[in-house]
Amino acid sequence: MASSKYTVRDLARDAGVSIATVSRYINQDYASMSESTRKKLDELAEKNGYVNAKMKTPANIAVVIPDITDPFFAQIVEAVEKCSETYNYNVQLCLSQESFEREKQYIKKLIQQNVQGIVYMSTVNEEKNCYDMLKDAGKPFVVLDSYLSEYNVPALVFSNGVWGMYEATKHLIENGHTQIAYISGLRFHMFEHYRYQGYVNALLDSGLAVNPNLVKFVGFGMLDGVKCFRELMESKNKFTAVICENDVLAMGVYKVCAQMGLGIPEDLSIIGYNNTILSECAQPAMTSVDQHVDDMIQTAVDLLMKQIHNEPITDKIIRIAPSLVKRDSVKKIN
Amino acid sequence: MASSKYTVRDLARDAGVSIATVSRYINQDYASMSESTRKKLDELAEKNGYVNAKMKTPANIAVVIPDITDPFFAQIVEAVEKCSETYNYNVQLCLSQESFEREKQYIKKLIQQNVQGIVYMSTVNEEKNCYDMLKDAGKPFVVLDSYLSEYNVPALVFSNGVWGMYEATKHLIENGHTQIAYISGLRFHMFEHYRYQGYVNALLDSGLAVNPNLVKFVGFGMLDGVKCFRELMESKNKFTAVICENDVLAMGVYKVCAQMGLGIPEDLSIIGYNNTILSECAQPAMTSVDQHVDDMIQTAVDLLMKQIHNEPITDKIIRIAPSLVKRDSVKKIN
Repeated sequence: MASSKYTVRDLARDAGVSIATVSRYINQDYASMSESTRKKLDELAEKNGYVNAKMKTPANIAVVIPDITDPFFAQIVEAVEKCSETYNYNVQLCLSQESFEREKQYIKKLIQQNVQGIVYMSTVNEEKNCYDMLKDAGKPFVVLDSYLSEYNVPALVFSNGVWGMYEATKHLIENGHTQIAYISGLRFHMFEHYRYQGYVNALLDSGLAVNPNLVKFVGFGMLDGVKCFRELMESKNKFTAVICENDVLAMGVYKVCAQMGLGIPEDLSIIGYNNTILSECAQPAMTSVDQHVDDMIQTAVDLLMKQIHNEPITDKIIRIAPSLVKRDSVKKIN
Repeated sequence: MASSKYTVRDLARDAGVSIATVSRYINQDYASMSESTRKKLDELAEKNGYVNAKMKTPANIAVVIPDITDPFFAQIVEAVEKCSETYNYNVQLCLSQESFEREKQYIKKLIQQNVQGIVYMSTVNEEKNCYDMLKDAGKPFVVLDSYLSEYNVPALVFSNGVWGMYEATKHLIENGHTQIAYISGLRFHMFEHYRYQGYVNALLDSGLAVNPNLVKFVGFGMLDGVKCFRELMESKNKFTAVICENDVLAMGVYKVCAQMGLGIPEDLSIIGYNNTILSECAQPAMTSVDQHVDDMIQTAVDLLMKQIHNEPITDKIIRIAPSLVKRDSVKKIN
């Protein structure tokens, strides 16, 4: 069989690299090796049946994320898997289930284990994270959407929530809406904070007042949306439109509208956020802000590769501009 | 530091096992070792900072699945992650993106690599799989929902689709429906075939005819549901209810109903399948068949563990009975 004959020497010759490079490759020391070299060696080793015990340990990227029940998080995980595959890294999935304890256990394990890098979105229900643990361990990682105060990480990729929510709010204002309710998850995290800022800025820029009675910070689930929107309706505050901080919350608003006989967009305009499968499935199809997950994750994985290969990172904080996907849930009222 | 002092001998003593057992543990030879022993050794090694180069390679389970865009597949992946975590295995995510080529590449990699076992759902758009490759390699795996002809695998866990669809159809019949349309993905795969069988059986058991004009095999996406249901409406065949083979297809039916001004359930009753977040978000909330993903995956991972530990498997084909979750999309018409 080829596997018994094909040697390190053959691998080096066929790949056009030195034996020292092959040796580093076998030891998974990729720091000064280009991805193309590693990929070439991967392919040659596989094609010629070259097996080395150490190579049985594949190159891994871990994705640490709260859960994948929200289709937006599923999009992120799917994008990480796609990007990593092009770099020939495996993806290890770590779901914290919104428990910081679980998240910490995972990070501890990942530090000990043979994981080349981590795409990391911390839990959203606690103001803690494991950035320092990772930094102390020298483990490459890229943070997705995180707290305002946590800029001290190797790399951070986030969607420009100010811009996304500004665009959404401006779209409503352009369509004649001046009383716009805002439903969001808890407020102390950066990405929601940013979104709220976008909403406020758009109103103020248009000379409209921000009515705190129309702003609700609740949770992230559909039932949070249901409960919060019912309260808004009962409060007798007047509004003609609602912006929700994610599509799942917006589904709660849709539900209450149907129960109360409110037509969308005839009686109420709605804009969601994340542009998930839910905004397509909603009836009428919902206008929603798209965060361009594929771009975000491509950027994040590229930044991770730079860290893995000890390449300099010039911009360690990357903002991706989201865009508004217009569908049928907004009515022109002017 | 403790890490420089804690030895194999200490590990054996504290765990109450032999040094030979610890040696097998370090070499990840878990075949004749109980999960409780491995877990105890994991915990002691971590607690006392015992590190061995070989242990940096964690124990891995891979999940091979088409994608996680359909919330049902996301549920499966989430359940695999939860179950594996209790066994202290990492989860490697492999999305075939409905490409058999990609799937095959993944399986080849997994065979070479240090993966203890695989939870495997093959792509649904081709009548091929990699079961034989895995069997030849002696790699433990459990198949989820697969072709009729493929019983020759180490273990197979599937939801009893005959039962699930029988229950759904019977529920409609009990509510007075006799003309029930059926929309499904392509037909040559076992699990859909089973579901269709359940629909047919329920009709025949109730003395109702099966009208082939009301049965449509299309694809799995929302747009397939839209297209197919429009055709059904244009065909002038009469029906008072529709069963869809997954919730995503059913969202397409909801959409067309809204566009055509058909009320659910006033003018049309609908039942979906998979009981995903979509059935909750649908307006009105949709009756749907729940496959009990958590049970399925717990069973699958247990069967995988038995293979990994060379324990005998008495029942290698496990059917999980689904159940109908009744919501507001079915009208009583008798």
